[in-house]
Amino acid sequence: MSDTITASPTIGVFDSGFGGLTVLRSLIEKLPRARFAFIGDTARLPYGSKSRRTIARYAVESTQFLVREQGAEFLVIACNTASALALDAIQDAVPVPVLGVIEPGAHSARAASKTGDVLVIATDATVQSHAYAAACRAQGLRAIEKACPLLVPLVEEGWTSHPVTEEVFRIYLSEITRDAAAQGLQPDTLVLGCTHYPLLRSLIEKEVPRGMRVIDSAESAADAAAGMFNGRSKPAGGNDDIRPTEIHCFATDSVEKFERLGSRFLGRPVGNVQLVDLGG
Amino acid sequence: MSDTITASPTIGVFDSGFGGLTVLRSLIEKLPRARFAFIGDTARLPYGSKSRRTIARYAVESTQFLVREQGAEFLVIACNTASALALDAIQDAVPVPVLGVIEPGAHSARAASKTGDVLVIATDATVQSHAYAAACRAQGLRAIEKACPLLVPLVEEGWTSHPVTEEVFRIYLSEITRDAAAQGLQPDTLVLGCTHYPLLRSLIEKEVPRGMRVIDSAESAADAAAGMFNGRSKPAGGNDDIRPTEIHCFATDSVEKFERLGSRFLGRPVGNVQLVDLGG
Repeated sequence: MSDTITASPTIGVFDSGFGGLTVLRSLIEKLPRARFAFIGDTARLPYGSKSRRTIARYAVESTQFLVREQGAEFLVIACNTASALALDAIQDAVPVPVLGVIEPGAHSARAASKTGDVLVIATDATVQSHAYAAACRAQGLRAIEKACPLLVPLVEEGWTSHPVTEEVFRIYLSEITRDAAAQGLQPDTLVLGCTHYPLLRSLIEKEVPRGMRVIDSAESAADAAAGMFNGRSKPAGGNDDIRPTEIHCFATDSVEKFERLGSRFLGRPVGNVQLVDLGG
Repeated sequence: MSDTITASPTIGVFDSGFGGLTVLRSLIEKLPRARFAFIGDTARLPYGSKSRRTIARYAVESTQFLVREQGAEFLVIACNTASALALDAIQDAVPVPVLGVIEPGAHSARAASKTGDVLVIATDATVQSHAYAAACRAQGLRAIEKACPLLVPLVEEGWTSHPVTEEVFRIYLSEITRDAAAQGLQPDTLVLGCTHYPLLRSLIEKEVPRGMRVIDSAESAADAAAGMFNGRSKPAGGNDDIRPTEIHCFATDSVEKFERLGSRFLGRPVGNVQLVDLGG
């Protein structure tokens, strides 16, 4: 981490859509004096069903916008798919520190798990990359990954506590539990490997076996980012205490939809969203 | 329709993804001597949640590829969203005749309906455009439209006859039926306004009220295209009778996924799919 980062840094946060606003929400709580520039590449979402090459190209264009046009001194990749498939490409393309959500998620899983066996649910592309399995292995954990492609559209339909969503989650959970049992694992921790899933947290906590810990990668990433700033951006007293957090949101498509759906993920109005053309 | 079109024409078929292969399937049955070039803009799907401006740009790039690189003499827009939002833009951008799926769908609905009241289910963007309502009005029909955003991911998950999909469809159907009743309509026809929905046809036919006709826009568009060729491409006897249909498929992302999922929609293997970079 460079020492040139200011005490009230500009933090760039990137997602393919709105889901990453759950990461921004956690970041705001932990770094209230920072200036945030968030971009959702909504013209090209979802990344979860696309190839590594395409995802890397899209992610690099979006993060270069945050650094070059918005002056971001630090980047949080608030998208599991892009973290899984494009973190290296982004790190090569921009001259600032870059933090993804996968490693912090695996780190939290290690802190939570007693058996050392964890379940990870995510999008197709994240699962196919096996980025969580690798990050968990690096922490001494064994992980079983499962793609749950219906959960994102169910969240976007607003069915976050709907009987259909409960049924779909029960089906996915029974499949991943069976896979884990077949490999002799005794999972006690479930990692939410997609930034849409925190909106299903209460539904998921009702359905998982008693005692299973649910880890939110969004929150883990925000914790990691806050830790990296070493308290430099915490309120220092005086007028700074009441200085509101500065948030600038950008989208590559329909700002109206972003403004309407985004508040569900951010937990407050997203304000004016500006349209950006990345040429794609 | 230009007279310069050949007896074994090259027909360009365009969709944002795989769904349009249901239209290609119907076209092959009706025009077995044609050469088909199909492009699925899979790097940028789904179009259903994007803005008119973005959809038009993507659709124009894809169809220009079919005309300029593949020599298409006739274009079928096998995507309800692009037909609803970008048909004019495509017609302005290419020098060949262009047929969408909306008008043929409305035309079939008029032939099927006795009450003159129809239900239309489609993606968000198609519904928000009200293109079906307008096309139905032009046919003297009254239409109630309903966005069903969960049906596409359910089809892509392969849950085409799953209890969850039945339940989701029942919820959507009860909502659109209530909307129709509130407006004093007596619908007797349901239009499938998305090329993914034909894969749910047997499930849908089980759930709709007895006597309700189900219209597939994909099939209607293929009928209209075949009609426009005035029998010029029908087998004329001799060796031509056994000449196999020529099909070339292109995708803007993961050809592997296209090959794997595409056969479900085409009802036969899609063969070698070539990757195309449209620069987006």
